[in-house]
Amino acid sequence: MQGQMMNRPLLISGLMEFAERIYPNNEIVTRRVEGDIHRYNYADAAKRCRKLANALARLGVSSGDRIGTLAWNTHRHYELYMGVSGMGAIVHTVNPRLFPEQILYIINHAEDRVLFVDLTFIALLEPMAEQLTSLEGIVVMTDRAHMPDSSIKGLICYEELLDAESDQYEWPVFSEETAASLCYTSGTTGNPKGVLYSHRSTVLHAQASCQAGALNISLDTTVLPVVPMFHVCAWGSPYAATLTGAKMVFPGPHMDGASLHELIDAEQVTLALGVPTIWMGLLAYMDEIGKTLESVESVVVGGAAAPMSLIQQFEEKHGIFLIHAWGMTETSPLGTVNSNSRVMKSMPLAERYQLQAKQGRPIYGVSIKIVDDEGIELARDGVAFGRLLITGPWIADSYFREDHSENFIDGWFDTGDVATISPDGYMQIVDRRKDVIKSGGEWISSIELENVALGHPGVAETCVIGVAHAKWDERPILLVVKKPGETVSEGDMIDYLTGKVAKWWLPDAVVFVDELPHTATGKLLKMTLRDQYQSYLLGR
Amino acid sequence: MQGQMMNRPLLISGLMEFAERIYPNNEIVTRRVEGDIHRYNYADAAKRCRKLANALARLGVSSGDRIGTLAWNTHRHYELYMGVSGMGAIVHTVNPRLFPEQILYIINHAEDRVLFVDLTFIALLEPMAEQLTSLEGIVVMTDRAHMPDSSIKGLICYEELLDAESDQYEWPVFSEETAASLCYTSGTTGNPKGVLYSHRSTVLHAQASCQAGALNISLDTTVLPVVPMFHVCAWGSPYAATLTGAKMVFPGPHMDGASLHELIDAEQVTLALGVPTIWMGLLAYMDEIGKTLESVESVVVGGAAAPMSLIQQFEEKHGIFLIHAWGMTETSPLGTVNSNSRVMKSMPLAERYQLQAKQGRPIYGVSIKIVDDEGIELARDGVAFGRLLITGPWIADSYFREDHSENFIDGWFDTGDVATISPDGYMQIVDRRKDVIKSGGEWISSIELENVALGHPGVAETCVIGVAHAKWDERPILLVVKKPGETVSEGDMIDYLTGKVAKWWLPDAVVFVDELPHTATGKLLKMTLRDQYQSYLLGR
Repeated sequence: MQGQMMNRPLLISGLMEFAERIYPNNEIVTRRVEGDIHRYNYADAAKRCRKLANALARLGVSSGDRIGTLAWNTHRHYELYMGVSGMGAIVHTVNPRLFPEQILYIINHAEDRVLFVDLTFIALLEPMAEQLTSLEGIVVMTDRAHMPDSSIKGLICYEELLDAESDQYEWPVFSEETAASLCYTSGTTGNPKGVLYSHRSTVLHAQASCQAGALNISLDTTVLPVVPMFHVCAWGSPYAATLTGAKMVFPGPHMDGASLHELIDAEQVTLALGVPTIWMGLLAYMDEIGKTLESVESVVVGGAAAPMSLIQQFEEKHGIFLIHAWGMTETSPLGTVNSNSRVMKSMPLAERYQLQAKQGRPIYGVSIKIVDDEGIELARDGVAFGRLLITGPWIADSYFREDHSENFIDGWFDTGDVATISPDGYMQIVDRRKDVIKSGGEWISSIELENVALGHPGVAETCVIGVAHAKWDERPILLVVKKPGETVSEGDMIDYLTGKVAKWWLPDAVVFVDELPHTATGKLLKMTLRDQYQSYLLGR
Repeated sequence: MQGQMMNRPLLISGLMEFAERIYPNNEIVTRRVEGDIHRYNYADAAKRCRKLANALARLGVSSGDRIGTLAWNTHRHYELYMGVSGMGAIVHTVNPRLFPEQILYIINHAEDRVLFVDLTFIALLEPMAEQLTSLEGIVVMTDRAHMPDSSIKGLICYEELLDAESDQYEWPVFSEETAASLCYTSGTTGNPKGVLYSHRSTVLHAQASCQAGALNISLDTTVLPVVPMFHVCAWGSPYAATLTGAKMVFPGPHMDGASLHELIDAEQVTLALGVPTIWMGLLAYMDEIGKTLESVESVVVGGAAAPMSLIQQFEEKHGIFLIHAWGMTETSPLGTVNSNSRVMKSMPLAERYQLQAKQGRPIYGVSIKIVDDEGIELARDGVAFGRLLITGPWIADSYFREDHSENFIDGWFDTGDVATISPDGYMQIVDRRKDVIKSGGEWISSIELENVALGHPGVAETCVIGVAHAKWDERPILLVVKKPGETVSEGDMIDYLTGKVAKWWLPDAVVFVDELPHTATGKLLKMTLRDQYQSYLLGR
């Protein structure tokens, strides 16, 4: 028997309509690509989103079409989020930090019909413009005065495009399963893979992320997404902010410590989201100028594990709680969040830091489990570690136009991470599955070894890989980039690690290198290093 | 084009599984019907819900069957919420405060197959048991030792029923549109009408009610639903608490001031929900004993407008914020909530009270509007008032086995209320549509007149109705029940009202009566009074 409730689909246009109607005067502030501060409110934004929808319709865009963006976090990018998805098309956020051949691949694979691009990326686009065969139009996200000279013909000006349109538009109503946005994930191997979010997944994810046990976003929050809107939709924060009417602040391309500090202070940001590197920069800047940030209550850290020193510095120097979170492009991205709580506040700091170093608990809507190589579920005892699987209404069930069914097993997505889960639900990433070192049947976490080694004052970067070993199948070796001018020996490193990790985890060799190879998005290319050092221990 | 996200339905069993897995040790505390305190946790509750599901299956209950309850707020009633809906059947909460003939009508109309009943209500049930023809079993929610002697044959003991079962049970997965629970609303006329909630509506409502801009329920909250679980599912709070792992406290039948004070203090409740009458009792008790409640941060008031004195007393005597909310059985029930915010905290108290007296803003998911008699939308200017319509995924689109299509217009539910909406989204109920007084084409709010008149120190209860008038079509008359031993005259009342309401709102007559007629749930029977006093002014 069916319930007798109204059949109202969860649509992204509904978020916009809600904010416009209930919180029309709440602000959206942007440091524009052009450099100045732009300020308007949800009522203004909603009007421009409707103009954009009219403009897209005039350009011939219809339901299901992919519309690309190469853009920073700005109010215009936000308008594309709402306007493109709202009209039934798909906003495809392309990561401009990828290698040009990857960008080319992605836009062609998605068959984007129109591309919206920030001034910054015109130069990047020019050499490949002719090969972007699906594109029927390129819109530069600026006004007439700032339109660039370019080798690309027929560039459209964003502000002119909008100016020509009426702000009257009725958002269409369609199935909530309809695709809303597309984001490609670049692993360390193979072509980038597209994840196609739906209106339903986006809205449910936004609802869940606002909860106090997740990112705790409300009307009283001022949200600064430093994490890019081309990086899993800025972790969904623009949708979540709209749902609550929270003030939003966009940094544009200006993400250095000084710019962030000024913007946060001027706009009284209370919640900021970003990867560890960003926060290192901000903390270093604040150390330098001897200032703090009074308004900020929490920073959300994801994209990579938060180092203990980051948690400590925010807490002890600035009274800011670091919310450690974990997710992936395939998970929208929020999977687990380590939020503040009454229990946590009552803990001694040292104990709290240990807990904060974990990636947190699943938020309602997703379930996680760890399994062994045969798919048998492992104990939630905080000790056993295994492959981390996840399921829920905002988790991908396949990739866009690709078969990778090996990643999707019985309704669960295999994250490729190896993790532990504690009896009270806290998940901690141990390693990437392909990077974990199998020594005599036991597992060693390359990440944990790297993090401990990174604590040595003479060390700038570390990488631990497993290489072939005659007796133990695989043993860890530690690659180290020294800080300029520092002298560190193999013996120093082993001495430093001794007592900090299990004895049998100690690397069999320490290799000093000038630099380590990375992907375009900054991930270590461990596969390359494994190939290179495969026989390193065999010759000894 | 469809998104490529996992197809995971929103099911009530998922709430229970989540709480069991992530917050197994968080408590659920009940003052039992038997009088003592019962204490267990989400892990225990989940096990018993699975036993219950096995027991229901053994009794022959299957998907879509209605299972009645006549019960207080207790852990056993909670198990029925989760276990009955979880297995795919429908938990039908019957209001024991209705007249016996209404209870009989409701159970027969719903065709309940099994009825779960608290000890308290056996005596109520005995005279009608033979006429409850759809029932195949009656389960008494107690243990063997407390089983009553009864004229009803074959009563089943709840604890024995569970004891016989395994706690292993796999919750079935089905469409989220499946019916989950059923609640009848009793108006002042006609038969009660059933509202059939779905799993989807229940889960979306729970997600929305946890938001900081709604009831602000999180892991740190200790929730006390004093509002009965037979009254729109205790406003959905048991589902919301489960979703966040919040500690829950159930008062059983003990809702007097002394019992509530003791329970709240002992269990350190932070959020309590109930109708104004309950809070009047608690406040009077605290005045009497000269104590306060340190743990409580907010009380939620719904079911009837919160009088200004209630808002003030909570704030000024106890530092407790009163969250004013509005909803109906047909709206699950949360429609609008007047939550605390940074802006509100910065207001002078007098101004804040004026704002708090409004029923609040719609929570994300629902939309409201006011329309005139022709269905034309009226201005959101805080002045215009019209029929309040509402829509959203947890709003009824029809009644169970009844046609009342006049209440459902173009995807909107006509609430029967008359309201204003301010430019910043605050809704205020002016009157019930059938009670508003039309004097010479202008509307007078009977509720507002009643509330002002109630401020007179000699007055115990007031009722304002519109009666026929030769010149103005309709004019208000005021019915007053005096406090024992008080002398108040018609002139006194008019003097008291003068200056507090518009001059043309002043009643044309004041009638002193010994008592006023009410429905079983305490609503004033204004229709009866209008019939009685219809010609009162014409004879003058």
